[in-house]
Amino acid sequence: MENFIFQNPTKLIFGKGMIGQLAKEIPAGKRILVTFGGGSVRKNGVYDQVKEALKGFEVTEFWGIEANPKIETLRKAIELGKEKKVDYLLAVGGGSVIDGTKLISAGILYEGDAWDLVLKGCEKHTLPLGTVLTLPATGSEMNSGAVISRKETAEKYPFYSNYPVFSILDPTVTYTLPPYQVACGIADTFVHVMEQYMTTPGQSRLMDRWAEGIVHTLIEIAPEVLRKQDNYELMSEFMLCATMGLNGFVAMGVRQDWATHMIGHELTALHGLTHGATLAIVLPGLWRTLKQKKMAKLVQYGERIWHIDQGTDEERADKAIQKTEEFFKSLGLPTRLGDAGIGEETILEIQKRFTQRQVAFGEDQDVTAEIAGQILENCK
Amino acid sequence: MENFIFQNPTKLIFGKGMIGQLAKEIPAGKRILVTFGGGSVRKNGVYDQVKEALKGFEVTEFWGIEANPKIETLRKAIELGKEKKVDYLLAVGGGSVIDGTKLISAGILYEGDAWDLVLKGCEKHTLPLGTVLTLPATGSEMNSGAVISRKETAEKYPFYSNYPVFSILDPTVTYTLPPYQVACGIADTFVHVMEQYMTTPGQSRLMDRWAEGIVHTLIEIAPEVLRKQDNYELMSEFMLCATMGLNGFVAMGVRQDWATHMIGHELTALHGLTHGATLAIVLPGLWRTLKQKKMAKLVQYGERIWHIDQGTDEERADKAIQKTEEFFKSLGLPTRLGDAGIGEETILEIQKRFTQRQVAFGEDQDVTAEIAGQILENCK
Repeated sequence: MENFIFQNPTKLIFGKGMIGQLAKEIPAGKRILVTFGGGSVRKNGVYDQVKEALKGFEVTEFWGIEANPKIETLRKAIELGKEKKVDYLLAVGGGSVIDGTKLISAGILYEGDAWDLVLKGCEKHTLPLGTVLTLPATGSEMNSGAVISRKETAEKYPFYSNYPVFSILDPTVTYTLPPYQVACGIADTFVHVMEQYMTTPGQSRLMDRWAEGIVHTLIEIAPEVLRKQDNYELMSEFMLCATMGLNGFVAMGVRQDWATHMIGHELTALHGLTHGATLAIVLPGLWRTLKQKKMAKLVQYGERIWHIDQGTDEERADKAIQKTEEFFKSLGLPTRLGDAGIGEETILEIQKRFTQRQVAFGEDQDVTAEIAGQILENCK
Repeated sequence: MENFIFQNPTKLIFGKGMIGQLAKEIPAGKRILVTFGGGSVRKNGVYDQVKEALKGFEVTEFWGIEANPKIETLRKAIELGKEKKVDYLLAVGGGSVIDGTKLISAGILYEGDAWDLVLKGCEKHTLPLGTVLTLPATGSEMNSGAVISRKETAEKYPFYSNYPVFSILDPTVTYTLPPYQVACGIADTFVHVMEQYMTTPGQSRLMDRWAEGIVHTLIEIAPEVLRKQDNYELMSEFMLCATMGLNGFVAMGVRQDWATHMIGHELTALHGLTHGATLAIVLPGLWRTLKQKKMAKLVQYGERIWHIDQGTDEERADKAIQKTEEFFKSLGLPTRLGDAGIGEETILEIQKRFTQRQVAFGEDQDVTAEIAGQILENCK
């Protein structure tokens, strides 16, 4: 087990009707900037519940944080927040709204252009931020990460900022989500866990079991969730898995490999493909490419999750990868670049970008531009 | 899944050599009361490491917090803390030292007798507290609970106070623990997890998987830990399991049954039996008594943990209980009252106490004095 430091201060407020608790969590007298995505929260009742709960506070609303939040949009929110002298932020939405609001919470206290913060990071000097989650997927409601895009240059980068002070998770708000978003949320959660797991066995037996526990749960509930999206128990489980998948709880003392995400971000930046869908394409291709390196863990994963206990290690690993791809397909997601209409020129462009930025990913920082190209070839 | 609120702010600093980080975690200028148990930390090098790390701080030492910390001892530490005007506490020891120091951290700010706090609770008004853990078992290093005893009346009660600000867990400090303490620590961790798990299935699939993940890990490592107590990987796993077993991470949205602990506390209060050993006796007896009520979960547990997939539910449950008792025996622990020299008069005394206090335990508060008596009869 590697040495580690773990701390996650976010207060999780989970369950039906919990949005009503909002006012208790924000100190009286705060001037709140409430951020939203599109209009879905007007239809599913969340907006009305939030408005009701915030009676008595000085509230400014900012609408229109898009999927893969763009610096161009967030700059406007930062300007508005500065103008209104807000001192508290409340993000009401999915991972994109929360991610964007993390940058806003830093940007309001920063004098320069907020894109600087994306490039250089900002772990301090942020306004306090609460969230009301409407789409389980990214885990942003209980971590300090965010991913911000820049439209003019088609760039998309992760940055690290503040943990939400609190996050309210009411599973009933997910009943009316578009099924494709639910499928992408399941894939996103699945891959988050795998990026913290699929390296080598024996680093931590407990962390392995916990990661497998999330993946096992997702695989069990997925077919039911897709059929019964208004089932409270199922959606609670999905929502809890999504949050637990990326809040540090399965990352203690183990190495991580975020190459799938880094390659997936490029596909979104270049083609606007939904984040979870990019991961469903890249993960199996990455495993096919790095099969020798990840063999022992692929075998453990295959045996514990898919009950693959016959054959050579190579055969078992192949079978585990195949089962994973079939799982993504069963969610209705693309699993090959061709399914999403992405061709050779994108592979070359991504290789070029990684070469220019001189980056390398993976648990050993050995997924270079060249290897990323091979991975994408294996996603065709 | 039940509605829940989760928050655990403790900073976990885990790994070899991490005691050296102590000074970074305590604000400069603090007047620190450092609390210890007996002298074992002088022998294993922990005392020297702590002393070295705290150079430059104003430090007062308090020695002699015993196993099952007693209010009579803690009152002296509180008096010393008040006299020295300390404003930070550092507990260096196992669960008993940490538990006791939680009461000290509240008692220093309280004008009356600290036993009042045990009886009525104290969730605020505490001095900040850090810990250096030396014995994995109670989970106190990452939760807000404590258990305090009163010698003059042979009473032992839980109380809830503050989370440690930080806890330093260096697995190498466990190499020289007495093997019986290691065995008791494994049993304690095992039972903590079971008290949060063994109710009914289907409340949360994920929490079930995580609870099973800890228990699975403990069962896997236990024989090896007992043979190779200086193996870093094994002791890391044990230490991580103990902390994760009682920090709220496996308790989200599920009902809990702490009857085994409540009955076990009485055995310690009356006979001085080590906490983990009392649990190894009471848990199987409680399951034998409440088998019908807990049948479905016992069957799930038997199948997932002990691979019991044959027979009627009743037979499977019996087998699961038997395997659990055998596991405790394999640790060298007593599993029957007779093994610990405890007889009928103790059963009657505990029944009398529970009747007088009008208490009832368990997930449905239906473990009355009478049922507790039946449970203890089934521990004979």
